[in-house]
Amino acid sequence: MACQSGSEQRAAEAQKFLREIRVLVDEKLDAHLPPVSERPSRIHEAMRYSVFAGGKRLRPGLCYAAWKAFGGKGEEIFYATSALEMFHTFSLIHDDLPCVDDDDLRRGRPTAHRQYDEATAVMAGDALCVHAFALLAKTGAPEVVATMADALGTGGMIGGEITDIESEGKKVDLATVDYIHDCKTARLIEASLVVGAQIAGAPKPDVEALARFGRKIGLAFQVVDDVLDVVSTTEQLGKDAGSDVEQGKATYPALVGVEASRKRARELVDQALVDLEQVHADTTVLRNIADFIVQRVN
Amino acid sequence: MACQSGSEQRAAEAQKFLREIRVLVDEKLDAHLPPVSERPSRIHEAMRYSVFAGGKRLRPGLCYAAWKAFGGKGEEIFYATSALEMFHTFSLIHDDLPCVDDDDLRRGRPTAHRQYDEATAVMAGDALCVHAFALLAKTGAPEVVATMADALGTGGMIGGEITDIESEGKKVDLATVDYIHDCKTARLIEASLVVGAQIAGAPKPDVEALARFGRKIGLAFQVVDDVLDVVSTTEQLGKDAGSDVEQGKATYPALVGVEASRKRARELVDQALVDLEQVHADTTVLRNIADFIVQRVN
Repeated sequence: MACQSGSEQRAAEAQKFLREIRVLVDEKLDAHLPPVSERPSRIHEAMRYSVFAGGKRLRPGLCYAAWKAFGGKGEEIFYATSALEMFHTFSLIHDDLPCVDDDDLRRGRPTAHRQYDEATAVMAGDALCVHAFALLAKTGAPEVVATMADALGTGGMIGGEITDIESEGKKVDLATVDYIHDCKTARLIEASLVVGAQIAGAPKPDVEALARFGRKIGLAFQVVDDVLDVVSTTEQLGKDAGSDVEQGKATYPALVGVEASRKRARELVDQALVDLEQVHADTTVLRNIADFIVQRVN
Repeated sequence: MACQSGSEQRAAEAQKFLREIRVLVDEKLDAHLPPVSERPSRIHEAMRYSVFAGGKRLRPGLCYAAWKAFGGKGEEIFYATSALEMFHTFSLIHDDLPCVDDDDLRRGRPTAHRQYDEATAVMAGDALCVHAFALLAKTGAPEVVATMADALGTGGMIGGEITDIESEGKKVDLATVDYIHDCKTARLIEASLVVGAQIAGAPKPDVEALARFGRKIGLAFQVVDDVLDVVSTTEQLGKDAGSDVEQGKATYPALVGVEASRKRARELVDQALVDLEQVHADTTVLRNIADFIVQRVN
């Protein structure tokens, strides 16, 4: 019981950190996105509509926390936090498209193609991806562009998404679900931490341990996401609840049930914390976020 | 007459150069694209299907020629030539989508979403964009990622495409057509030259003069493209001829007619050649390509 309550305490601390960092991250995002007053204004409006739809800013938060843990100084980190949120939003806009997941709601509001139109949604996603790479180039850390591109490409996020679509309505095994979740979600969460550490100039062995931690909490995050899709209402989630089942998506709960899924997420986070012990830095905030990931309700 | 025949001769030389460089460019593209044998194979197949659909490789050719003009050495240039062709293909795949231009044919073959499906086409385009940035990062020239992102973003290619869509069926003036063409086409052609020069370590004033040259031949290229859409058959073009008129696209011939458009393209190339004189390097190949651009038939 004492342990559980410690874990709850840490999750609450993480939420507080994310709420605070969110203010800074959003301020910089606003400065880094092209203004609506600039031509062509409609696409700039669409980019901002989706970026400022109310996300948790988990990826920027992880990036900032990793950077801070390694004594990062200066303002360059915010190019990376903005880029991460733009990449994440790019993937959400394209995943929501009628030809992909065909979702109408995202964070309690109409998805980009419902609010604007499909062509604008495709182009707004493209533009967010391109502008994010421009921001990454400004960090001055030569390795971050490669780190992100690896995490986003067909060996990462896009590969996971396409396998996810291909698996719809098919009987898939747990290894395939792990593969999809790892590519689609864990790689970008891992990269968020790695990029933060790279910008701070962290030693390679520490970056590697941090990457292993990130991969595991990323997988846990997606398992929890699957569980929430089953047990929550649309109102709680801000997106269509139960849509995984409806679309015949390959998920953890569909294969092993809700309880075993929750257990798996907790195990992954526990294993991740062992990796985190190999990181030579003050990792308190990262540990808190790991606890938040298994305990979150939306 | 002597002048005209000199120009024809130079265009023929350019075609010969592009045919030769194409072999090298394609060999490297093959090496830089993920293999179909690798998971997820369908998207790798779709990426290759569109990249190897038989383009002229004009952008890689310009990039290579600029690099060579400034005494470029080594193999890094081919990361850039591959990236340029991937960016170009990314834009073609997304522009052809049903929700954008809804084209069925591209280079004489079914477009990506007709050959595969819409979701695969969206993701294949995304993946080409992301993988291209990874390749650019490998060139070791720190400025190339920013150069390309600027040319591709909402102030460049994507901005031009969205304005193009918004202008469909509307009465637009020549300034708007120039804006669309400049963004949609000229910026990427300009960037192809700039990136080549940057990788060769060219002096800044030379890069700037080369950029002005590129912007003008890029605009000329698109004016000629508009003319060809009107005067050619679908067979000659390898894509749906007359589709601009059908879609109510903002084009040069629609506003000023075919002959005045041809004259404008020639004037732009002549002005571009004045800029090229400010470049301190052997620019013979670039001059030849400029002549090819106004004389091409597909």
